[in-house]
Amino acid sequence: MQAAVISAEWAPRPDYPLSEEERRTRTARVGSSVWKHPQVAVQELPDPVCGPEDAVVRVAAAGLCGSDLHFFETDADGYMHYPGLARFPSVPGHEVAGEVAAVGERVQHLRRGDLVCLDDMVCCGACEACRRGFPNQCEHLEDVGFTMNGGCAELLRVPARNLWSINSLRARYGGKEQVLEAGAVIEPFTVAYNALFECAGRIKPGAFAAVYGAGAIGLAAVQLLRASGGAQIAVFEHHAQRRELALRFGAHHAFPANGAQPARAVLRELTGGAGADVQVEAAGAFRHTMPEMEAAAATGGQIIIIGRDRNPAAVQLEHLQVKKANIIAAMGNTGHGTYPNVIRMIAAGLLDPTPMITHRFALRDFAGALAQAQTRQGGKVLVKIG
Amino acid sequence: MQAAVISAEWAPRPDYPLSEEERRTRTARVGSSVWKHPQVAVQELPDPVCGPEDAVVRVAAAGLCGSDLHFFETDADGYMHYPGLARFPSVPGHEVAGEVAAVGERVQHLRRGDLVCLDDMVCCGACEACRRGFPNQCEHLEDVGFTMNGGCAELLRVPARNLWSINSLRARYGGKEQVLEAGAVIEPFTVAYNALFECAGRIKPGAFAAVYGAGAIGLAAVQLLRASGGAQIAVFEHHAQRRELALRFGAHHAFPANGAQPARAVLRELTGGAGADVQVEAAGAFRHTMPEMEAAAATGGQIIIIGRDRNPAAVQLEHLQVKKANIIAAMGNTGHGTYPNVIRMIAAGLLDPTPMITHRFALRDFAGALAQAQTRQGGKVLVKIG
Amino acid sequence: MQAAVISAEWAPRPDYPLSEEERRTRTARVGSSVWKHPQVAVQELPDPVCGPEDAVVRVAAAGLCGSDLHFFETDADGYMHYPGLARFPSVPGHEVAGEVAAVGERVQHLRRGDLVCLDDMVCCGACEACRRGFPNQCEHLEDVGFTMNGGCAELLRVPARNLWSINSLRARYGGKEQVLEAGAVIEPFTVAYNALFECAGRIKPGAFAAVYGAGAIGLAAVQLLRASGGAQIAVFEHHAQRRELALRFGAHHAFPANGAQPARAVLRELTGGAGADVQVEAAGAFRHTMPEMEAAAATGGQIIIIGRDRNPAAVQLEHLQVKKANIIAAMGNTGHGTYPNVIRMIAAGLLDPTPMITHRFALRDFAGALAQAQTRQGGKVLVKIG
Amino acid sequence: MQAAVISAEWAPRPDYPLSEEERRTRTARVGSSVWKHPQVAVQELPDPVCGPEDAVVRVAAAGLCGSDLHFFETDADGYMHYPGLARFPSVPGHEVAGEVAAVGERVQHLRRGDLVCLDDMVCCGACEACRRGFPNQCEHLEDVGFTMNGGCAELLRVPARNLWSINSLRARYGGKEQVLEAGAVIEPFTVAYNALFECAGRIKPGAFAAVYGAGAIGLAAVQLLRASGGAQIAVFEHHAQRRELALRFGAHHAFPANGAQPARAVLRELTGGAGADVQVEAAGAFRHTMPEMEAAAATGGQIIIIGRDRNPAAVQLEHLQVKKANIIAAMGNTGHGTYPNVIRMIAAGLLDPTPMITHRFALRDFAGALAQAQTRQGGKVLVKIG
Repeated sequence: MQAAVISAEWAPRPDYPLSEEERRTRTARVGSSVWKHPQVAVQELPDPVCGPEDAVVRVAAAGLCGSDLHFFETDADGYMHYPGLARFPSVPGHEVAGEVAAVGERVQHLRRGDLVCLDDMVCCGACEACRRGFPNQCEHLEDVGFTMNGGCAELLRVPARNLWSINSLRARYGGKEQVLEAGAVIEPFTVAYNALFECAGRIKPGAFAAVYGAGAIGLAAVQLLRASGGAQIAVFEHHAQRRELALRFGAHHAFPANGAQPARAVLRELTGGAGADVQVEAAGAFRHTMPEMEAAAATGGQIIIIGRDRNPAAVQLEHLQVKKANIIAAMGNTGHGTYPNVIRMIAAGLLDPTPMITHRFALRDFAGALAQAQTRQGGKVLVKIG
Repeated sequence: MQAAVISAEWAPRPDYPLSEEERRTRTARVGSSVWKHPQVAVQELPDPVCGPEDAVVRVAAAGLCGSDLHFFETDADGYMHYPGLARFPSVPGHEVAGEVAAVGERVQHLRRGDLVCLDDMVCCGACEACRRGFPNQCEHLEDVGFTMNGGCAELLRVPARNLWSINSLRARYGGKEQVLEAGAVIEPFTVAYNALFECAGRIKPGAFAAVYGAGAIGLAAVQLLRASGGAQIAVFEHHAQRRELALRFGAHHAFPANGAQPARAVLRELTGGAGADVQVEAAGAFRHTMPEMEAAAATGGQIIIIGRDRNPAAVQLEHLQVKKANIIAAMGNTGHGTYPNVIRMIAAGLLDPTPMITHRFALRDFAGALAQAQTRQGGKVLVKIG
Repeated sequence: MQAAVISAEWAPRPDYPLSEEERRTRTARVGSSVWKHPQVAVQELPDPVCGPEDAVVRVAAAGLCGSDLHFFETDADGYMHYPGLARFPSVPGHEVAGEVAAVGERVQHLRRGDLVCLDDMVCCGACEACRRGFPNQCEHLEDVGFTMNGGCAELLRVPARNLWSINSLRARYGGKEQVLEAGAVIEPFTVAYNALFECAGRIKPGAFAAVYGAGAIGLAAVQLLRASGGAQIAVFEHHAQRRELALRFGAHHAFPANGAQPARAVLRELTGGAGADVQVEAAGAFRHTMPEMEAAAATGGQIIIIGRDRNPAAVQLEHLQVKKANIIAAMGNTGHGTYPNVIRMIAAGLLDPTPMITHRFALRDFAGALAQAQTRQGGKVLVKIG
Repeated sequence: MQAAVISAEWAPRPDYPLSEEERRTRTARVGSSVWKHPQVAVQELPDPVCGPEDAVVRVAAAGLCGSDLHFFETDADGYMHYPGLARFPSVPGHEVAGEVAAVGERVQHLRRGDLVCLDDMVCCGACEACRRGFPNQCEHLEDVGFTMNGGCAELLRVPARNLWSINSLRARYGGKEQVLEAGAVIEPFTVAYNALFECAGRIKPGAFAAVYGAGAIGLAAVQLLRASGGAQIAVFEHHAQRRELALRFGAHHAFPANGAQPARAVLRELTGGAGADVQVEAAGAFRHTMPEMEAAAATGGQIIIIGRDRNPAAVQLEHLQVKKANIIAAMGNTGHGTYPNVIRMIAAGLLDPTPMITHRFALRDFAGALAQAQTRQGGKVLVKIG
């Protein structure tokens, strides 16, 4: 099969304490401390073999996201930016949809020909986090497109339980191609759904909401809030094009981030002084968003953190105490009915991820897809396959 | 002021154990055991006087509901059907909207000229239920239109905290008259909202739902489920006209109650075998609905009871156990942000109660309004005032 | 190894619609319609072989419970009472503790020599229920001691993720033997814990509680309620000996079931009229308990169903509506941190299951153990092994 | 009646923007910007008159707490430290118990002679926060002992709904005097209960817990956690005497705050690496506690903030995201069944606040009581009256 393959040079930084296991498995725990000079090439790989609990998918489309770019962006010394688990050579791609080409003998919920999207988080099911019902906190997590070969390839083998049927979207979108494009951008919706309805989970219809950042996850949060009864949804975002997209995804208002008026003032005015019941951090800029969120929170308000930012944020906890407001820290997207609920909502026309897609490239032009994504302008970039 | 006034004859049934307090206050605890030969006349009453924590409303419209009819329907001996607290003469009307004419000196959240709708449940705030956060279970509840004079009159005096501003609906509906018509039919939405989001409260977007009965509360439940992310909403209802209305209110499907196929079979098919995550009993026919609901419940399903039925229902609890399904028993509509959240949703265009209104009568033709409502055909009957 | 082995005669009833799969796998879906003339013998079986994700346990003790007895009790035609999945010959025993003898190569959380107890529910992890976070509703559930060889044997092989370390109980109980006896009776506590804190889950400290039935699960519920802040715990139970045990397990009061005063009257009096916030059905006698529970529920009360009873119960839902009371239907014991939380509570001295054990038999005298359990007098019967 | 009366000099700071309402009502919104040279004297005041919804209490005991001290502590310019609403002259005392001396004509739940404790938060019941079910966030809150005359007096008049019967404690404590001493220190327990079980509210029995700070509220949190199934409770506290008290109140371990080992290390070790499920900040030292709490949180952990600290805390939100941990900001103690549940738990022997009391003074020696409290050593100081 053809696949985009990332290769890199194993060159542990002198001061990096490489463990015995990292050495043995040639998997770096902190990719950016070990892997140098990353390259990508579309090349031939052997077709994957389907194990008894696996399925093999003929991939139709794979979306690129911010994490993918960090494999290719390097520092002055040539080390990749990607700070997580990484082993090379490997195939990227964790936002994936396609058609089931083969299923293992023990697989009961899928058949050949089913259209499916991928849940990229492969949990062990055996660690204490998994057994306690925290699959996103699995202690032995494998992640398709990160620690396992991903979907920027003609074929993808994964445990069958990581695939969800999207046959139900046929009636909504008509053509198979459109169904599979939608399927390839479901993942950011599951991230937002998990944060809003599993991690936070006491959002009432009629809520006033604010979303900071209108990248893929912010846009998904906007559409989910609109579809679940958000009565007033304001977005704060730097890029004009993304503000446009936010309005198209259902925001009632879109303002420049750090605009003339601070978000707290805007929100107080929009809500008649009540403040925002739900605030979603999808910008990864805690230093800027946290002071606004704590000031703009309504009585009983929830501040939901999805964006990532390694820097500490200064929080005035007393501002939250007087309002009985909480901070909900969210990560991941698997488990708890997240995928099937998002798929049902798309099938019902309550969500539509497809306007997020603004660019499409063939697999052989993976380099072009990457270049476009690296401009960090516009919406989602799809790699179309087959 | 002009008002519709119900009078009746104090005639305790010989076997009814009239209490000292009932005798003293001339208030029957069980109206149907005490009051005979009810009559209604539109007549002149003195204008109400506004106390320091009260407001007086110039009423624009009052809806009639099933409970109102029970005042006028009698048994063979001439006793009214209404089984609750009742004192006569009194003014009916608990679904009310109007314009604030006067506010008491201690009132801070309302001004003269505000458009308002009524929360009819006047809680004491002092009993243990109130102090524990269960206002709908107030031990000394007064109910406007039942134990206090209601809104089928030119003026209505109530505690100001029982009025909610609907000024925010002006931008949605334009004219004041339309805003106030909408305001007069908010009450059934608050009953459904309380049941779905306060009593049940863990409904996730993407849920499959069924609503049994498409009267005012059933219709409100349908619209609320649709607006909050219900992915598949099926209604079961006897009357064809109400099934039409259900579809207009957002149901995906409307089936005859007790039709050719039982609801459980219909729902299994519609949901691909998954069953219904949320089921709302708004029919008051537990004997017929309960067996369907327990059979059709999804894993983790919630069966929400709003309809009233004095008869016991046979429940196969084991069917619920294997599915981790619950029965949520709901009543009332006050507290917990229910009114303001419903009003926000109407202002946002997520809900629109007005298509429920099918008939309008002037106050002087209260008898005509009553006669229409008693046909129990069609939608909501409004008494328009002033 | 030595093991108690149940054998029976494959004799599908003429009217039983045996499926192709049942025929092929020789597993009956409804044991009582297929298996006749059950017998048990302690005999030699080959030692189990440990797979890569398995562990093998040297069993120390196995408790007998009601389900075990149904294998051996037969109807007039000689068919066993047990109505569930069953394949013979097989080894019973699902309440099990022992010492880890071997672990598979992929197992990370256990070591040889660890003391462990068994979670008997082997979920598939791949069906929709599992993936949605409902492991007790797994569509392909296997159950150790029912569909897989159980713990009435010297050795037990199970997936390692179904074993929980109880090393932490050493400091509490001292001797290894006592730790393992405690471990063998953890299972009923996990059933009660799952019902109270995962299925119901909004029990507040200071609650008034009632438990109907003081078998193993009822006793476990009593101790859990006491340890989690129950301020008044009343038990209703037929057998005097079990009422004694209930008091020893922390009940404030124990009354005969269906005694001189109905439970509702007893509870109203004990609670100063408030009623019971939490009621646990652990009797499997819904016809008797349901009317009491609905009458005795407090405002906001929860009625939690753990007992099993195939008969429908007549429920006055209106009684629940006026009190905002719910019915919570519970089953199972796996997932959601149930096992580790129960183990932590035992280690902390908050729970102590051991007083439940009243009889002990050697494996070679399995018949004697069975005979004692069948008297259905007294507490838990342990089969001690090795 | 005799009462401790605080007087002070009305001297708005030149730069303080005194509002018209503050001028008119002579109530400062920021006491520390307006009131100078506070003094206290025990003197004769007219007996309070009981309104129709009020009760008058013959006070037996009143506890002093940190807020009380801030009235008397002044800055270099003579302004009091107390930063909240304040009007003088007034009577302090918000931790109060006594015997009902008179009840208003509309009061139904109390009788003369009842022993009662005070809920000091007098909510308006009419603002949006109150009507939404957030009484602790009442927009027009009055607070007994702060904006209304408090309990350091022979008689106290309050709305009857702010009094809770503690007659049920007679069986526990025997003498009336002991009951009333217990009643006077219930308030800190209600603050901790509200934070743990209403604001946080998904604490499961078997949890590992840490409490930072062992003042009255920290001690109450410890006892509540122990009584509700906490399996491991560690306290971090500066003062040795308070660490002793923490152990007596049920902590399993008490460590010096900022000791040799940081709390995160201590907790990791105590919990076998799992971390703390529940962490309670009752120290008001966010800069020191927050880094420990975010590092020590278990998967799904809750960080509950009760202490007050005007300084921002630097929070590493990413540390919380990877663990699905939340920050719960809590304040207040009224509503939601908090008082009755705490009283039930004391009646059941699950809680006992009395060991917290270390000093007792007569009302006439209020100055002595104050001096002792200002040492900030030891436990609760009671003013005994009558």
